Amino acid sequence: MPYINIKVTDEQVTKEQKQQLIAGATQLVVEVLNKNPETTHVVIDEVPVDNWGVKGKLYSDLKKLNV
Amino acid sequence: MPYINIKVTDEQVTKEQKQQLIAGATQLVVEVLNKNPETTHVVIDEVPVDNWGVKGKLYSDLKKLNV
Amino acid sequence: MPYINIKVTDEQVTKEQKQQLIAGATQLVVEVLNKNPETTHVVIDEVPVDNWGVKGKLYSDLKKLNV
Amino acid sequence: MPYINIKVTDEQVTKEQKQQLIAGATQLVVEVLNKNPETTHVVIDEVPVDNWGVKGKLYSDLKKLNV
Amino acid sequence: MPYINIKVTDEQVTKEQKQQLIAGATQLVVEVLNKNPETTHVVIDEVPVDNWGVKGKLYSDLKKLNV
Amino acid sequence: MPYINIKVTDEQVTKEQKQQLIAGATQLVVEVLNKNPETTHVVIDEVPVDNWGVKGKLYSDLKKLNV
Repeated sequence: MPYINIKVTDEQVTKEQKQQLIAGATQLVVEVLNKNPETTHVVIDEVPVDNWGVKGKLYSDLKKLNV
Repeated sequence: MPYINIKVTDEQVTKEQKQQLIAGATQLVVEVLNKNPETTHVVIDEVPVDNWGVKGKLYSDLKKLNV
Repeated sequence: MPYINIKVTDEQVTKEQKQQLIAGATQLVVEVLNKNPETTHVVIDEVPVDNWGVKGKLYSDLKKLNV
Repeated sequence: MPYINIKVTDEQVTKEQKQQLIAGATQLVVEVLNKNPETTHVVIDEVPVDNWGVKGKLYSDLKKLNV
Repeated sequence: MPYINIKVTDEQVTKEQKQQLIAGATQLVVEVLNKNPETTHVVIDEVPVDNWGVKGKLYSDLKKLNV
Repeated sequence: MPYINIKVTDEQVTKEQKQQLIAGATQLVVEVLNKNPETTHVVIDEVPVDNWGVKGKLYSDLKKLNV
């Protein structure tokens, strides 16, 4: 506790970036809520670009159009 | 806002079907709740058939039995 | 199967609107993916306006500013 | 996009703390992944202390024991 | 790790039942996957009966009809 | 209903273990809450070891250190 889930599109997120996301999210709940980092879990979901939609369109199509 | 998550088994969902799911889910919250489509996000999760269970059984096993 | 989760801010969504969201989301996966409506589940989460953020701000604050 | 969900126990999280969580989580994905803050959503779930378990025990019971 | 989420309709689940769900779910991943119970988290979500749908209908309506 | 989601790291979970998780989780809600197994869904998510963090570190790094 806490449990943090970060969902982003699957676009070559590096291992170093994942380390930064996990360190940063953990630090955030430690600083703001005084939570114990030992029991703070973070899960990163990388969603395929054909599986995320916004504005009623596929993200992969919006990206091609540079919208 | 809103955020909609659609979980289905991973059985060859086509890109066109994903477009229809995203367009349809977005239209639904626009029509029913008058939400802004610009900020409506839809994420589709395709779950492997060995990772979904119902009736206490693996979906992949039920499917073979044509249940 | 499928399982659909709709997250919206908690702003007086009526029972009738919930019925429409559930009927519409179910119909969507039936039409697009030929899924069985009998086993299609929809869960609506109404998130307090102080618990949703976008653009780095609380939704409740953005709403007051009419952004 | 991205979508971040923070689950914590429901223990008097203040509005100011929620603002800090949302600002911090948004800044994190902007800095690490160069994401657009305009479309970054954060949802905070406050879970009742009787509904969170760890070590096979209720959090509310562990808390009483000061574990 | 692991993280288990149990979603049920909000129908007077008692504290004792919650204890049993959390103990049982934890024991399950310990026995089947040899996971560490110390770091196993379980979150129970009680969903209002007007917010869960199946067969395209509200659960609260199906319940009244004894379906 | 209910809907149960089990998240574990992706470390060679076998099909037989998945069957046991699904059977066990279903039995749990049947026994404790008297739920109908016919409509109980279980989804297992296997999270890549580089995408799970605890104590502010990547699980894959902690594992190497045998922490």
